[in-house]
Order: sequence, then C-alpha cells, then structure tokens
Amino acid sequence: MLITFEGIDGSGKSTQISLLKEKLTELGHRVEVFREPGGTDVSEMIRGMLLNPELEISPVTELLLFSSARSQLIAEKVRPLLKEGVIVILDRFYDSTVAYQGFGRQSMPLEQIHQINAAATQNLVPDYTFYLRLSLDEASERTKHFEKDRMERAGDTFYTRVFKGFEHLAKTEPRFKTINAERDKQSIHKDIFNILESKL
Amino acid sequence: MLITFEGIDGSGKSTQISLLKEKLTELGHRVEVFREPGGTDVSEMIRGMLLNPELEISPVTELLLFSSARSQLIAEKVRPLLKEGVIVILDRFYDSTVAYQGFGRQSMPLEQIHQINAAATQNLVPDYTFYLRLSLDEASERTKHFEKDRMERAGDTFYTRVFKGFEHLAKTEPRFKTINAERDKQSIHKDIFNILESKL
Repeated sequence: MLITFEGIDGSGKSTQISLLKEKLTELGHRVEVFREPGGTDVSEMIRGMLLNPELEISPVTELLLFSSARSQLIAEKVRPLLKEGVIVILDRFYDSTVAYQGFGRQSMPLEQIHQINAAATQNLVPDYTFYLRLSLDEASERTKHFEKDRMERAGDTFYTRVFKGFEHLAKTEPRFKTINAERDKQSIHKDIFNILESKL
Repeated sequence: MLITFEGIDGSGKSTQISLLKEKLTELGHRVEVFREPGGTDVSEMIRGMLLNPELEISPVTELLLFSSARSQLIAEKVRPLLKEGVIVILDRFYDSTVAYQGFGRQSMPLEQIHQINAAATQNLVPDYTFYLRLSLDEASERTKHFEKDRMERAGDTFYTRVFKGFEHLAKTEPRFKTINAERDKQSIHKDIFNILESKL
C-alpha cells in the first residue's frame, strides 16, 4: 500500500506521518517513510541543488529535477518495498509537482506535467493521498519564523496559486482525502487512521 | 541559427565542431558552442552525476536528468543567444536521448520521450542536425583506448541499438543531414560547410 501526504508548508505532514507510522508499526505492519525530494543518493543530491538559493534553475528545469529525484526513489526503493508488502508513506509526491510547479510556477501546461509524472513513476498511483488542508493565513502564521530556502522564497502570490492547485486536486482526484489540518494533532491523526483502518 | 551534431562516440563531433566554429568566426559570425549535458552550473552538476560510475541511476532517472540539464542550458544560454543573433552549435541534443535512452536503454516508449524532449526545450527545434555516420566497427576501433565512464560501459548490444536509433532518426527527421564520417576531417568539414553556406 502506497500512502502519500500533501499540503502546503506548515500543514503538519511530518507530524502526522510520524503518528501514522507509529500506529501502523504497533499493529504489526512494516512501514517505510520517505520525503520528497530525497530518499536515495541521487535524489538527495538533487534535493541539495533544488534547495540551494545560489543556483539559477529555470521553472522547467525545476520540474524535471523533482521528477528525476522521484523517478529514482520509486525505482530504487518504493517499488521493491511495495513488492515485499511494506506500507510506504511519502511526504509529498507528484501532486506537489502539479500544485507547486504547475499551478504555482506555471512551468508548463498541466497535461504535459501529467505526462512527465506518469513517465517518472512508470504509472504508479497512490492508494490514498491525505491532503492536510490549511488556510493560507494559518500557514503563514505557522511558518513565519522558519528560515526560507530557495523554494520557500517565492512569495505570497505563488503560495496562493499553490493552494488553489491542491484545492483543484482535492476536487478532481478521488484518491484525495481532505483533512482539516487546523485542529489538534490527535484529532487529525484519528481521522486519517479511521479512513485507513478498514483497508488494512 | 541552431546547429546540432549527433553520432556515436568516436564519430568526430568535437573535431568537426571546432573546424566549423573557426570557419564561421572567420566569416564574421558570432558562434557559441555547448556540449551536452553541461554548459550551465546546474547542468555541469548533473553531468557529474550522470558520468559517476558509483551512482545507482535508473534508466528513467537517467533520461530525466539529461532532460533537466538540457532544459537549463536552453533556458539560460541557448535561447538568449539565439535572440541576439548568435549561431549556437550543440555537441549532442535531444536526438541523443532518443538514440541512447530510447533505443539503447529502452527506458520508455518513444512517444513519451518526444513529449519530454518538447517540454524540456519548450519546443525548440534545431535548424540543422549533422549526423556523423560511423560504422560500429570503426567506432569501436577508434575508442578502444579511451577510459570508459558510466555511460560508455553499457556494452556492445547497447551500442548496436543506439546506432539503430540514429539511423532511424536519419530516415525520419528531414533536418538530419547524414555525413559519412569515415573520411579525413577536411572532406567532412567541406561537406558540412557546403550544406550551411547558402543559408548564412
């Protein structure tokens, strides 16, 4: 089973992933977590490039680099683990590319992004995608003291478009489960686990 | 004007590019040459990853990394130079991706590769592509003393498929000009220059 978490920065993805991993492990499941971009030697090198504020990276290159990192993670780690029956949880997946590069940066038409996503993952589709929904005001409040990397310096208009991208996906992708992320972490965790429980 | 050179290793692309650059410069043209993958900070970093024999890189990731390096080169260097009227010569372009990753590694269907090539270059098409045609036996003879990098260690079956890829492109792409590369360098240079002369 492949479970992905999506949402803007500050929406609590890492916290919820930790809680879910702990719960599933307690129940006897083998669980592996990866963050995107990253998780393999090549993908971590690419991550370093993407977050480096000194590097000139065009919007199209950015999209292709995220896809390269993803492709390696899927081929080298995720597919072999899924084959062994491990539950894989991803902190972001190609839906982030649709939201950040497609809606946010408007790098290229969505149809082209879907083609690249399908190529990069060789048509792997998550079983569940938990979208931790947070208003932009709340996100901005939560992240205001963070030091910003290259991706996070893109400004408010950019983030408004990214937010719209996730909302669009939530409406059009049946695998998206929208979770109100403006609550305490245990309530959010319970909602997520309830959705999964019957499928385990 | 965008001119690209294609052909298997040992076909004499660098030599011919030097001769052509010299000739065009003498005639008063501004000429810039780039090799793929490379030509920008990001693209050179990607080149380092692609040639590193220690790194595990899946066939799909390899294709996407070449496309990332290409995308940055086009956006940051090639398009601005073409706009200024500079003649840009590329030592390999997306046709190499078709031949090496498409035919050679059979990474993904050709249709998908064409989609990614179009996305990475935002539909930039060369005016002329000189295909320096060399038999596999001759290529093997010429390169047998070279130290092999990661790309060059892929074996004979791989190179036979790459050769077929270039032959396929030569038959199907009207911009391909096939040049017999098993001759002395001045004869090859004259053929190339004759094709270009009327267009300058």
